Amino acid sequence: MLILTTGGTIDKVYFDAASEFEVGEPTVPHIFEDVGADIDYELVPLFRKDSLEMTDEDREQIRAACEASGHRQILITHGTDTMALTAEALIGISGKVIVLTGAMAPARFRVTDAIFNIGSAVGALQSLSDGVYLAMNGRIFEAGKVRKNREVGRFEATS
Amino acid sequence: MLILTTGGTIDKVYFDAASEFEVGEPTVPHIFEDVGADIDYELVPLFRKDSLEMTDEDREQIRAACEASGHRQILITHGTDTMALTAEALIGISGKVIVLTGAMAPARFRVTDAIFNIGSAVGALQSLSDGVYLAMNGRIFEAGKVRKNREVGRFEATS
Amino acid sequence: MLILTTGGTIDKVYFDAASEFEVGEPTVPHIFEDVGADIDYELVPLFRKDSLEMTDEDREQIRAACEASGHRQILITHGTDTMALTAEALIGISGKVIVLTGAMAPARFRVTDAIFNIGSAVGALQSLSDGVYLAMNGRIFEAGKVRKNREVGRFEATS
Amino acid sequence: MLILTTGGTIDKVYFDAASEFEVGEPTVPHIFEDVGADIDYELVPLFRKDSLEMTDEDREQIRAACEASGHRQILITHGTDTMALTAEALIGISGKVIVLTGAMAPARFRVTDAIFNIGSAVGALQSLSDGVYLAMNGRIFEAGKVRKNREVGRFEATS
Repeated sequence: MLILTTGGTIDKVYFDAASEFEVGEPTVPHIFEDVGADIDYELVPLFRKDSLEMTDEDREQIRAACEASGHRQILITHGTDTMALTAEALIGISGKVIVLTGAMAPARFRVTDAIFNIGSAVGALQSLSDGVYLAMNGRIFEAGKVRKNREVGRFEATS
Repeated sequence: MLILTTGGTIDKVYFDAASEFEVGEPTVPHIFEDVGADIDYELVPLFRKDSLEMTDEDREQIRAACEASGHRQILITHGTDTMALTAEALIGISGKVIVLTGAMAPARFRVTDAIFNIGSAVGALQSLSDGVYLAMNGRIFEAGKVRKNREVGRFEATS
Repeated sequence: MLILTTGGTIDKVYFDAASEFEVGEPTVPHIFEDVGADIDYELVPLFRKDSLEMTDEDREQIRAACEASGHRQILITHGTDTMALTAEALIGISGKVIVLTGAMAPARFRVTDAIFNIGSAVGALQSLSDGVYLAMNGRIFEAGKVRKNREVGRFEATS
Repeated sequence: MLILTTGGTIDKVYFDAASEFEVGEPTVPHIFEDVGADIDYELVPLFRKDSLEMTDEDREQIRAACEASGHRQILITHGTDTMALTAEALIGISGKVIVLTGAMAPARFRVTDAIFNIGSAVGALQSLSDGVYLAMNGRIFEAGKVRKNREVGRFEATS
């Protein structure tokens, strides 16, 4: 499995020195260790960005990294605000199953959706046919058919 | 989605009065609430048993509950010691995708695999074709082809 | 016991809408509930400020609130950067034992010093004679004889 | 500071192999590390017992360990059921401040009083004059004047 990390809330840590939250190192390996996941993976940290800062060029770079990889299963962690947009930008890559996920609350919080979301992405990755998907709120959405509803803080299918 | 709970480590709580751990109420609804899961489900608490106490009759009851349900997707939480055995006892139910999961450490622990495992089961449930599966250690196994390796505390495929 | 809250890292929450951390509502009552604390207290939320934004006028307001209170025991939660400065500004209030504390990591994190620090402040409050103290890093310091060492992220006695 | 550990709920861990909770290694050092406590201490693990199993001979051994120690400040972690009894058995040791604490829920739980209680004991230890005390539920009790009310799961002063 290839894991591409791009930043987002899931990886936010608190720097006391700055009294600020910033995107830190990828938390996926720590989650895997805590939960006893028995998964072979290659980790490629691409960016440490809030997803609102993600550009078209960044998305091209993510797409290129997916296409160039020898892995069929690709997990991408991403900020939630433009996760649906990045998913769309990956449509059409052949021979790959790609699942994007992230979190509304940082993985380092006591109550967080990060660990559950990584779990659901990993479960879906091993079960889906080729394509691009988004795993959030316990649901698996197809790329191009999902949006974040900011008012209710939840992803939903578009009609 | 139908959720059948049967007990096991995932639902263990600590009773100070008895200085003992016992199987408590199902934790899945609490997990769904904490992580903002947007899932319609029916919860049926069948047992509160350690899986070593699970009998053939209990397994028949689980099978009957699956067959009788109007839901195609069925999540079963179960103790780990005989989870593989119960999965086998469900093989052949038609028109259903059934995923069993549980945890090595109670969901109420600060470090636990429970939340991740429920996530991976939920992700797999929505992605798999009909059949019986087991979601543990970040992997999705087919019923009848998996065992718990007690020495290393991990599930693995049988050859 | 009087509890004055002034903001700081201990009360920081994450607002997904803004992808930002801000000072939220006081966490002390939630901590007391989680740990089964059997403490009668009056909660007065004074500010929701990073301690670097705290002004001399704010400190006068804190001092006035202490002096006006009918309680002998006063717990103040405060940002760490200027906690020592605020402690100094309270020296000389008679008939009160005042303990300031806070946290390097928000109380809502899975790993945080917030709960421990509130505990040590509460333990000290009930045990000390009148005066102004700071409870951080498991130690009890006298006001005027302590500083935050930002390099190592820890409070230490001044010689 | 001397830290004597005797077992009890605070140190309970879950052994998946046995599907059982047992008293594990002392958690105090892990708590100190997680919260950035800057405390010099000597750790002496005396027992790993449920406090209901604690005998008069065990209490004599605890008393002897306190008397023999070069440290003035002594923290004892202990099961809650007979903590008050052990505290009484230590009354009269001269030149020492001794604080007993423990937890209603294991330190490894996501919601636990363990970290808060260790904090309050540490805060009290540095602030009290010589004597024997019990730190539970956010309160500091004198030995001989406290009991555990098992019905409400809380310590209270005896009249």
